Order: sequence, then structure tokens, then C-alpha cells
Amino acid sequence: MSHPVSPLAPKHVPDLPAIAGIRLATAEAGIRYQGRTDVLYVEIDPGAEVAGVFTRSRCPSAPVDWCRANLAGGVARALVVNSGNANAFTGLKGRDAAARTAAIAARAAKCRPEEVFLASTGVIGEPLDAAKFEGVLADCASRAAPEGWLAAAQAIMTTDTFPKVATRTVRLGGAPVTLNGMAKGAGMIAPDMATMLSFVFTDAAVAAPILQELLAAGAAKSFNCTTVDGDTSTSDTLLLFATGQAGAAGEAGRAGGSRIESTDDPRLPAFREALEDLLVDLAQQVARDGEGARKFVTVEVTGAESDRSAHRIAMSIANSPLVKTAIAGEDANWGRVVMAVGKAGEPADRDRLAIRFGGVRVAHEGARDPDYDEAEASAVMKQDEVTLSVDLGLGSGAATVWTCDLTKAYVEINGDYRS
Amino acid sequence: MSHPVSPLAPKHVPDLPAIAGIRLATAEAGIRYQGRTDVLYVEIDPGAEVAGVFTRSRCPSAPVDWCRANLAGGVARALVVNSGNANAFTGLKGRDAAARTAAIAARAAKCRPEEVFLASTGVIGEPLDAAKFEGVLADCASRAAPEGWLAAAQAIMTTDTFPKVATRTVRLGGAPVTLNGMAKGAGMIAPDMATMLSFVFTDAAVAAPILQELLAAGAAKSFNCTTVDGDTSTSDTLLLFATGQAGAAGEAGRAGGSRIESTDDPRLPAFREALEDLLVDLAQQVARDGEGARKFVTVEVTGAESDRSAHRIAMSIANSPLVKTAIAGEDANWGRVVMAVGKAGEPADRDRLAIRFGGVRVAHEGARDPDYDEAEASAVMKQDEVTLSVDLGLGSGAATVWTCDLTKAYVEINGDYRS
Repeated sequence: MSHPVSPLAPKHVPDLPAIAGIRLATAEAGIRYQGRTDVLYVEIDPGAEVAGVFTRSRCPSAPVDWCRANLAGGVARALVVNSGNANAFTGLKGRDAAARTAAIAARAAKCRPEEVFLASTGVIGEPLDAAKFEGVLADCASRAAPEGWLAAAQAIMTTDTFPKVATRTVRLGGAPVTLNGMAKGAGMIAPDMATMLSFVFTDAAVAAPILQELLAAGAAKSFNCTTVDGDTSTSDTLLLFATGQAGAAGEAGRAGGSRIESTDDPRLPAFREALEDLLVDLAQQVARDGEGARKFVTVEVTGAESDRSAHRIAMSIANSPLVKTAIAGEDANWGRVVMAVGKAGEPADRDRLAIRFGGVRVAHEGARDPDYDEAEASAVMKQDEVTLSVDLGLGSGAATVWTCDLTKAYVEINGDYRS
Repeated sequence: MSHPVSPLAPKHVPDLPAIAGIRLATAEAGIRYQGRTDVLYVEIDPGAEVAGVFTRSRCPSAPVDWCRANLAGGVARALVVNSGNANAFTGLKGRDAAARTAAIAARAAKCRPEEVFLASTGVIGEPLDAAKFEGVLADCASRAAPEGWLAAAQAIMTTDTFPKVATRTVRLGGAPVTLNGMAKGAGMIAPDMATMLSFVFTDAAVAAPILQELLAAGAAKSFNCTTVDGDTSTSDTLLLFATGQAGAAGEAGRAGGSRIESTDDPRLPAFREALEDLLVDLAQQVARDGEGARKFVTVEVTGAESDRSAHRIAMSIANSPLVKTAIAGEDANWGRVVMAVGKAGEPADRDRLAIRFGGVRVAHEGARDPDYDEAEASAVMKQDEVTLSVDLGLGSGAATVWTCDLTKAYVEINGDYRS
């Protein structure tokens, strides 16, 4: 928590507008940290729809189990997020802690426990004392307000060095709808899901099955294209809440009868685009806050046999410690990129490979570019943001993923995180 | 090369005896390094058998292509290894350089180029100037002698901090046979193959198909159970040469007619065991010399649904940057072990997991061990060698792999290796 703000943090933090039907509050429950907020409470008006995407870990946290079980019910009235303790690998006690947290929140929000969604982030393996939420959540409910999005994003930080928020507005039919999102995550970041926690709220009226489809597709193009260290968290959670209150009783609002219930709805493409754009924004912020990161790296792969193959190769490059340390050392070491292409196990022909750092082509047709100028490449590597492009020359498959460099600070942060 | 010797280097370096039919020489060809040997030349008597296992990279180096093409011929008369340049991603020029090197060696050894095996290690992407071998290899041939195994292992080092050799003697039927091996590798180390280069020589008389079978099985239990950074080299090469000259014209020698030609041969188990033992020894030395390593880590997984599943989980743990940095920080952070079990994608039940650091059980049945004593665990973590054991409680699948911790020195070494 004491680490300086990442030099890659966005220069501008957007002001997030209110979302009709959503009220927020944060609190200091003293779960682990002192002198900072560690609880986010979100109250959601009746009638909202919810969708979720979770970690593919075979050892998920208790809150992930809780959310998965309750997602089918399709009703969300409250969200409680705590930082400092992940409530993961905490056994039966962990399940009890999740249930008790939901019960406390349900009393505060005047809803059923199954309508409360939960997420926890922080240390794994330590019991979470749910008693700490007693009183705190009721107080949150009494204070909850449509403002305070940045404070909300701050309350869920762990090793993050900056809060991550994003907002988009799009017209759905005639009415403007808003999407607000927040994310946290700096380490233990890899696809399936890539971020530990991200929450998106919208006043659009979209049926839950459609929301779920949009969210899964959006996650594939955003968080699942991000990696910091290739480690998949036990707690990854992405939730999307749609209150349906846009345009009050007007055009796009549920009251107006124009809830989107089909994937063929002509209003959907604009919403999908705004959602994906927002998710990519948040996902990139996670890579920008990668533990110890000094460079934001975009890996573009083209010419692969398929998009899926391109994605695997891009992730192999983005996860390679040798590529990431070379970038930290500002070294345009294309040999390590070849290595990472080779180890991906996907179709590749060394003699057709072309590699660019920024706009500088360093290699083509299986060898160093004869026109390659080391000084030009060095200038590219000194930038804060580096784009690494690989063309395989085999087909039309393409993918883009985002990561950061691997620095000594990553080792430092993770060598003494728990103690 | 200027890094201090790994504190995990074996305390005792064995003296390697002569192997009948094998003669060695090293030289300074000035390929990249100054003031040190960078070429190993090995001459092999007519009649030897050869087996090989190579990288599974889709972008292998030119020497790997060369060896693969010539392995089918089954005749090996010379081995040339250089350090400083990997001759990988060097295109047509790279193939020409390999062919020219083989031609120069063939003149020196008085054999055909196809009977020369090649391996190169060092920088990827730089053209290898084969002209540097002109004169050098002929001089090596004139000096080649049965001694000089340690010098041979030194000539093939790159970022290695110590030469890696091992020897075993075993009775094959009545006659003693010897196996000598060497390896190099410190980074870009992951299974398929795990080491960059390893060469094993024996005077046993074993037919090439049997050798190949033994070598592939041995690699699976040794080098493929080792990881430093999860990065797979373009150049990984393991070659086994068998001269068949043990016992002169006696029992186990080919002259004695007792060449092993069947996997049912009752003499084979002892040989297999000695070979595997030697390969494990070399593979562990590679992990002990992992770039920046301060701790040698053994990961044992038991109770998995199958051995294959256990191996994947063990490699997921051994490759996790978060587990490796925790070990560097001497932190018995079992939460990260759970994370790595979870991300492996193999069957696992959080509530049956037991985790031990050294002899100390830190977690069982999905939660922290109630009897866990942090001081005891801390004492384990302060050791140079740490064993991390995970029991999944599902079946009888088991696997053991070896790795090292991830320290700031790894980042330092790889952030400025090329420059």
C-alpha cells in the first residue's frame, strides 16, 4: 500500500455520474488495514438485472462460490466488497463468513441474503471475521448515496497504487444510458479472469441472459486479454448490474416497456460497444498498475492461423518473464519474442516471422532485418508505452493483449506482501 | 558471466573418468566472449550409437534442425558445441552456418558432415559466423583426449555460474559401464526440454532405438521436471552417445557380441536406473543454477487423480511468480500455493487440500492447520533448500519437480543480458 503511484496511471480520472437505482457507501471495518476504507457497500433498487463472470480456478474463494450460486436467481439488491482478506481457502468457516456477511447486508438493504452479491480481496488462507461487518453495513445503508464512485474504487484496493474507474454514455434507442465501472487488481493477474474484481453498473434495461452474453464476450476481449504475472486469482469476479431506470419512465427504461430482451435488438450494438470499450479501459488500467510496472506493453499478433491461435501466442509473449525483463531493461530483444512464439505450441514458421517494436521492424523472414537500426529501436524501448507486434505470415488470425514489464519492484512487492 | 557462483551449487564436483571411444577438446574461438573457452569438440569412435531429445519449440534453432535431420542416420562421429551465439532465428544464413560448421568438423574428425552433431547456446537472432571454427576444430581434433570433462562443461556455459557434470558406474551383465554427463542452463528453462543443452556419454553397448526410448523416458523424469522461469528455449538439446566399448572385447562390449538390443534384456533395468539418476542429478544442477536463485525448491504433489495431473499441478506451482517470490521472501505463503493449484485447471478439491513446507503442515482440509506454528514454518523457509508438498486427497497420482526462487537478481540478470 505504501508503494508510489504507478507512472503508467491514467493522467485524467473521469468524474462518474450517478446511475439511477444505485447508491454507494464505504467504511473502515478494520479487517486488516488501518486508517483506510476497506468496505464498499452498494445498494441496488428492486428490479435490477445481474450478470457475472468468475475465476476458472479450481479452488475458488467463498464469495465466488456464493455469487455463482445466487446468480441463477437473477435478483441483485446489494453488493458488499471488502479488501484486506480474500476469504479464500478458509474452508467451512469461509462459507459461514460469506453467509453471515450476506445476512448482515440483507438486513441493511431490507432484502433476502440470496440477493446480496459478495467479493473479497486480499490475503488468502486467513479466516475472515464477518462480525466486523455488524453495524458497519447498516451504517453504510443509512449513508448510501448516488455519488462517491472514486471513493468506492479506493475502498477495494489492495496493492493497487491508484483507483480504477471508467464511464461511458451511449444512446439506447432514443434515451441516453450510462455505464460506470470500477476495477481493482495489480498482481495475481492472468486471464480466466484477468482482474481480481471489477463491477459495472448501468441504468440500461437489458434482460439478464442478454447481459450475461454481453459480459462474457466483453470479458474475453478485455480482462482476459490482460496479464501481469500469469497467476490466476482464486477470487476473480466481474459483475454487471443493470437497473433499467434510464430515461425514468421513458424510452429505454423498463417502465417504458422497451427492455432489451433479444440479441437481435437494433439498440444492442451501441450498448455492446460501449460496454466493451469500458471493460477494455478498466482492463488496461489493471495492466498499468501491474505490480512494479514501469512500462505498459501492448502485444499485437497478426497473421496467425486463427484468432484463438493469435491470442495464445500473444499471451505466451505477454507472460514470458524473459520478454518482460528485457522490456524492463529497455532492450529490444526480439530473440526472446521468437522464443515465446515458439513455446506457445501454436502453428508458427520461423522463416515467415516479422517482429516490430513500436514502428521499428527488427526482424523479418526468420532473421534480423538488414535495415534494422538499433538506435531507433532503443528510442522506442525508452518510452513508457511499448507496442510489440508479431506477424506470423500464415493466415488472418489476430489478437491484442496488454501487460507490463517485470521489474525488481515486482519481486520486492511480492517477497514481503504478507509479512 | 560476472555473477557470483550460486550458493546452491553442489559442494562436491565429481571427477569424471574416461569413456572408451570418447575424446574431448575445448578452444577459444572468440564467437562472443573474450578470455574464455567457447567451443567444445568431442570426437567419437566409429560404431557408436546416438539418441536425442529436443525442444518442442515451434521455432527451433538451426542446430536443433540439423541434429533432428541427422539423428535418423544413427551414426555419430563428432559433437561440436559453442556458447555465445544460439544460431537461432538466423534464417537461411543460420542453416548455412550449421552446415559449414559440420563440414569443418567432418574434415577434422575424418567423417561425413551428417555424422556431426551440433548445439549452440547464447544470444538468439544474431548471425553465427561459422568461419570462426576454421582451423579451431582441426586443432581441437589434434589435441582431443579422454580427459577434460570439467573443462568441457565450462566451455558450454553462458549465464551459468558453475559447470554441471555428473557420472555413474553400473554393472551391465558382468562388465562395469560408465555414464558421464554434462549440462548447461540457467535461464529460459522450462519443460519440453527443460535444459538448453545436455550431453551424456557411455561406453555401454546399447542399440540406438533402445537408447532413444531410455533417453525420452529419462528426460520426462528429469529435465522435464525442472523449471526456472517457464520459458522454453529454441535450442534445448539432450544427446546420448554410446560407444559400446565397455569391457573392451569383453562381456558387455559390442565386440563381445552382447549389445543390448531388446527392452526385455535383463541387464537394462540397472542401466536405465543409472541413466535416470544421472539425468536427475544434472537437471537438479540446472535448477540450482537458476538465474538469481537463492533457494533450491522441490515441489512434491501427491493424491492427484493421475501422475500426469500431479505433474501439471506441480509445474503450475513451480512456475508461479507469486509462489517463487514468496519463497525468495522466506514467506510460507500457502495461499499462493492454493492459487497455483487452482489455476492448473486439474481436478482439485479445496476442502481436501493439505500443504506442507518442509515437515510443517500449514494447511489441511481447506483451511489453515489449527496446530500451525508460524515460527516453525519460518525456520523451514530460511533454509537453502525448501520442499513444498501438496496432497490433493483425491487419488494416487504423484509427481516431483524442481525449481528455484524468483529474486531481484533474476530481473537484473535478464534486464541487461544482451547489452
